[in-house]
Amino acid sequence: IKLSRSKIYLAIILLHAVVLIGVLGYRFLADYTWTDALYMTVITMATVGFKEVQPLDDTAKIFTVFLILASVFILGFAIAVLTEYLLGRNSLQLLKK
Amino acid sequence: IKLSRSKIYLAIILLHAVVLIGVLGYRFLADYTWTDALYMTVITMATVGFKEVQPLDDTAKIFTVFLILASVFILGFAIAVLTEYLLGRNSLQLLKK
Amino acid sequence: IKLSRSKIYLAIILLHAVVLIGVLGYRFLADYTWTDALYMTVITMATVGFKEVQPLDDTAKIFTVFLILASVFILGFAIAVLTEYLLGRNSLQLLKK
Amino acid sequence: IKLSRSKIYLAIILLHAVVLIGVLGYRFLADYTWTDALYMTVITMATVGFKEVQPLDDTAKIFTVFLILASVFILGFAIAVLTEYLLGRNSLQLLKK
Ligand SMILES: [K+]
Ligand SMILES: [K+]
Repeated sequence: IKLSRSKIYLAIILLHAVVLIGVLGYRFLADYTWTDALYMTVITMATVGFKEVQPLDDTAKIFTVFLILASVFILGFAIAVLTEYLLGRNSLQLLKK
Repeated sequence: IKLSRSKIYLAIILLHAVVLIGVLGYRFLADYTWTDALYMTVITMATVGFKEVQPLDDTAKIFTVFLILASVFILGFAIAVLTEYLLGRNSLQLLKK
Repeated sequence: IKLSRSKIYLAIILLHAVVLIGVLGYRFLADYTWTDALYMTVITMATVGFKEVQPLDDTAKIFTVFLILASVFILGFAIAVLTEYLLGRNSLQLLKK
Repeated sequence: IKLSRSKIYLAIILLHAVVLIGVLGYRFLADYTWTDALYMTVITMATVGFKEVQPLDDTAKIFTVFLILASVFILGFAIAVLTEYLLGRNSLQLLKK
């Protein structure tokens, strides 16, 4: 359980790092405003993806490809870690009964 | 199992609350019609996200960021609670065999 | 396990029914071509949602809201049934060891 | 566990195959540039789906329908295999305690 908890912290830190990279990328690679960069990062990572806030050039498209892949892996890791934690806690509660 | 069931009710209430906040937000922050506000809320929370029904200003974009985050957490909670309930029921059936 | 399998058939039938309703709805409510109606149904149900193939009026938007909700519930049911089936089969294999 | 690991390799190979088919399809069926074809494939398979990079004709729409279906099945298979692997490893660790 202790190991699980430190993995949850790792997942949260990684998630924040990807959001930060996303915001900085759209701010400086694609010249978005800060609000648009945050909005674009969130609609991309949550896979809502209304449409690109401003058209992206090839560099920004490749950046988006990597942001999506990083997001998929880190969200997958976060879900796996959280599931492991919840299942572990439930199993412990069952054993106590 | 009883605890799980009251958590399911909580998840359902929270989900309805987020939908309501979404509809009211798009109706009054972004001046959408009621139909468009409901449509925008559903395509956002289900992550279908065709495109913004009408362009959003910065306030409405920040509102959308919070709606997406709230939706992700509450849907995650709902899925966790439902999984816990179904696994619990299945384990009980196994123990009865 | 037998019960699980008949639930899998039910999930498959329900999924096909929703796809059919989606295609018919976009064909006749929104005057899409058959190809566009199929394309719109698939990008909606898979939550890819590039953008509406043709603009939707209020009736078609409400139809889309119901299609998304039906899709979420039936895909959720399908995933639950499939998970139950796979876990059941794995548990059986563990018991045989 | 050994069986699971070879299924993980299969899932990874299938995923790469679908990405490759997607890129080739958008490059030659829809005349996208290589960058746009990769971008379109990734936003489709990750269900971000901002909007079609260039408008698609009927052939390219049908191709996209099949790409989405293939993606859903293979990602579903990958998630099932990975879950099986992680649960199996966790159960082993529990047995060792
Ligand atoms: K979109
Ligand atoms: K989407």
